[in-house]
Amino acid sequence: MPEGKRAFEDFQAGDKRDFHTVTVSKADIIDFASDWDPQPMHLNEAAGEAGMLGGLTGSGWHMACLMMRGLCEGFLLNSLSQGSPGVKELNWQRPLRPGDTLTLSYEVLSARASASRPDIGIVLFHLAMTNQDGEVIMTMVSPIMFARRQATGADA
Amino acid sequence: MPEGKRAFEDFQAGDKRDFHTVTVSKADIIDFASDWDPQPMHLNEAAGEAGMLGGLTGSGWHMACLMMRGLCEGFLLNSLSQGSPGVKELNWQRPLRPGDTLTLSYEVLSARASASRPDIGIVLFHLAMTNQDGEVIMTMVSPIMFARRQATGADA
Repeated sequence: MPEGKRAFEDFQAGDKRDFHTVTVSKADIIDFASDWDPQPMHLNEAAGEAGMLGGLTGSGWHMACLMMRGLCEGFLLNSLSQGSPGVKELNWQRPLRPGDTLTLSYEVLSARASASRPDIGIVLFHLAMTNQDGEVIMTMVSPIMFARRQATGADA
Repeated sequence: MPEGKRAFEDFQAGDKRDFHTVTVSKADIIDFASDWDPQPMHLNEAAGEAGMLGGLTGSGWHMACLMMRGLCEGFLLNSLSQGSPGVKELNWQRPLRPGDTLTLSYEVLSARASASRPDIGIVLFHLAMTNQDGEVIMTMVSPIMFARRQATGADA
């Protein structure tokens, strides 16, 4: 990988990388749910036991936010990112549980220049969150826009 | 709408409803970004001015979390919700700005019984977040599972 901030040119289809690891506590799960998703199964164990998933489980949006922060810390804050227009799909495959240690990884599905903005390229990522047992708990497909090094002259 | 908790039977294709309103401050935007999406354009105005969107803007994940909390407060906490397997699409169409007052609305795209679980039905929602100027800033398509009143006997 070149030095300096990562630009569009640093991502190619087929690239795979583990970019972040994070451990989530029971307090983290309850704090997030209290702020953003106060459903009983995300707030207390008794309610969780009564539900489909068994026991206290984290909000799916907690997983998504952990992914966003992991992207920032893993490489986005040291890149020429120009943001994202959205998410193509987001799948919550297994529950997030207290004490889980999560590995965040990406595979680049495609990397193409923008038709309308020659200074920008669009990288389509398949993002996965895997727990300590090797189970994928969340996947996401999302495009992120990056400035092109050629166009900006950065690091060129 | 029948009394008691909302069940699968209470959603029909074509139903439309505004279900929540929330105003977002500059401090809210910075707090969320500090926790989950610490990119410069979500943390300070100077960085925002230098970016594509102009000025301080909220994280797209802040919009998504505001939608989740709005769903909870609007009707989900008073329903027989069984959670969601994910999101089919999530589009950030315009920026979230300090002082915005957002109206959250849904349209039911479909409502069908689960093939594998006769006690559950799946409601596919098109969710929209609209600002005080009538501009849609985010849309989302997401299925939510609800228990069937017939199966549970609740309110029957």
